Amino acid sequence: MGAFKMRGATNAILNLSEEKKARGVVTHSSGNFAQALSLAAKSLDVPAYIVMPDTAPEVKKAAVRTYEGKITECPSTLKDREETANKILKDTGATFVHPSNDLDVILGQGTAAMELLEDYPDLDYIFCPVGGGGLIAGTALAVKHFGTNCKCIGGEPLEADDAWRSLKSGKIETNETVNTIADGLKTQLGDQNFPIILENVEEIIRVSEEEIKSTLRLIWERMKIIVEPSSAVPLAAVIKEKERFKNKKIGVIISGGNVDLNQLPF
Amino acid sequence: MGAFKMRGATNAILNLSEEKKARGVVTHSSGNFAQALSLAAKSLDVPAYIVMPDTAPEVKKAAVRTYEGKITECPSTLKDREETANKILKDTGATFVHPSNDLDVILGQGTAAMELLEDYPDLDYIFCPVGGGGLIAGTALAVKHFGTNCKCIGGEPLEADDAWRSLKSGKIETNETVNTIADGLKTQLGDQNFPIILENVEEIIRVSEEEIKSTLRLIWERMKIIVEPSSAVPLAAVIKEKERFKNKKIGVIISGGNVDLNQLPF
Repeated sequence: MGAFKMRGATNAILNLSEEKKARGVVTHSSGNFAQALSLAAKSLDVPAYIVMPDTAPEVKKAAVRTYEGKITECPSTLKDREETANKILKDTGATFVHPSNDLDVILGQGTAAMELLEDYPDLDYIFCPVGGGGLIAGTALAVKHFGTNCKCIGGEPLEADDAWRSLKSGKIETNETVNTIADGLKTQLGDQNFPIILENVEEIIRVSEEEIKSTLRLIWERMKIIVEPSSAVPLAAVIKEKERFKNKKIGVIISGGNVDLNQLPF
Repeated sequence: MGAFKMRGATNAILNLSEEKKARGVVTHSSGNFAQALSLAAKSLDVPAYIVMPDTAPEVKKAAVRTYEGKITECPSTLKDREETANKILKDTGATFVHPSNDLDVILGQGTAAMELLEDYPDLDYIFCPVGGGGLIAGTALAVKHFGTNCKCIGGEPLEADDAWRSLKSGKIETNETVNTIADGLKTQLGDQNFPIILENVEEIIRVSEEEIKSTLRLIWERMKIIVEPSSAVPLAAVIKEKERFKNKKIGVIISGGNVDLNQLPF
C-alpha cells in the first residue's frame, strides 16, 4: 500500500493466536497505518476495524475502504478516538494494534533496514524519519543486529522536535505546537519504543520546513516517486549536513506516499 | 533520467564510430529526449548539443544543464529549431540524432519490452504509447522477436490520433490540432518507424482527455510514481477496454515523468 507501516501491521497480526485473529484488529489512525492494517488484515483474512476522525480526507477513507477496512468515524480528538476504539474492542473482542508503540509493530518496521543491509551490508549510516517512534526503533534494532559499524540517525522536523528533546532529557517529551507539513511526524514517542531509541539511535538531526519542502520537491522531480512530506525528512537531514557525510555510505528510508493531490505544497 | 528515451539515446551513441563520438551529438527537443541524450552522452564522455525552444520550461533546461548538455535556445518553430541544429552540425561536425525516427534509437527503445518479456515471457499483450513512433516501433519489433503469441497494441490520445489514422490509410497522416495534455504524443510518425509500425503493431486504441486524466491520477495515487500524462495513455487504453482484455496477461510500458509540478492537471 505504499508505506513501511504495512510491515509492522503484518507482523503484529501474524503474531496473534488463531482465536484472536478470528476476532479481528482495531486501530485509530487517519493515515498510512489505517490503510496498512486494513490491507494486512485483508490479505490474512482477518477483520480490521478502523477508527478515523470525521475530518479525515475522503481519499484516505476511500483507500481504507478499498482494502476492506471497516471504518467508524468519530470527532477528531484523541479522547473520542480512544473511546470509539474501546467500544469496538468491547463489542467485537478484537485486538488493539497501536501504530508505533507495540513491539511486534516495531520489529516489523525494522525489516526495511534489515533488507537494506542485506543488499548493502557496508552502509555507514541509515537515516530514518522520527514520528511516533515505531520505524526508528525497529530500524535502530536492525542496524545494531545486522549492520557492521552502521549507525542509525533520525530526521525530525524542527517544528515537532519532541524526539530530539527526549534524547537530550532522557524522558519522553511532548510537542506544544506542531506547525509542520510533515504530518506523519507530529506524533510523540511511546513507552515501548523510547527505551529502544534512547539506547540505539546515534542522534537526531532536525530540519526546517523549507528544507523539508525543497527535499520533497527534489524527490518528486528527480526520483519520480510520490512521497509525502514526512518521507522527505531523513534525506533533508543528510542534505543539511552533506559536508559531514561526504564519502560515507548512506542508506535512507523513504516511505509513505499519502498525499492529497488537491493540496500539494508546490 | 526517468524515461525510456535514455535507451534509444544510449544505443544511438554507442553505434557511432570513435571519431564521430568525439565530435558529439545534436538534437532538438524540449522534453525527455533532450535530457536523455545529454545524460547518455555524459556517461559515454561525448559532447551533447541540445537545441531547445526559448519557451521551454526552466525545469527542463535545468535538467539538461545538470546532465551537462550544451543548450542553444531558439524560437519555438520547427524551422528555427532545424536551422539552429544545422548550424551546430556545420560548426562542430557532430551527428544529428532524431528522437524517434532513427533505427538505432528505435532498437534502443525496444529493449524495454525485451526486458519485460524476459521477466514475463508469456504476456499476451504489451501496451505502449504512440507519439513520434520510436518506442512503439521498437516495442513491436521486440514483441515479434522475443514474445510467444504476444501482440503489441498502441495507446494514443483521441485528440492527436495521427497514428491511428495512418494505420487505417497506410500512409503517414498528420494532426491538424493537438488539444491533448499528453504533450509527448503530439508528434507524428516518421519514414523510418512507420513501416515497422504498419507491419508489426496489432492495433491502436484511442483514449479521451478525461480517460487520460483519470488514469494519470490512478497511477499517481496508487502506484505512487510520477509519470507525465503521455505515460498514462497505454494504461488508459487497457482500462477503456477492460472487459475485452479480462484474464489476459498484459504488460504496459509506463515511462516518462517530465512534469512541471507548478502546472498539474489535478
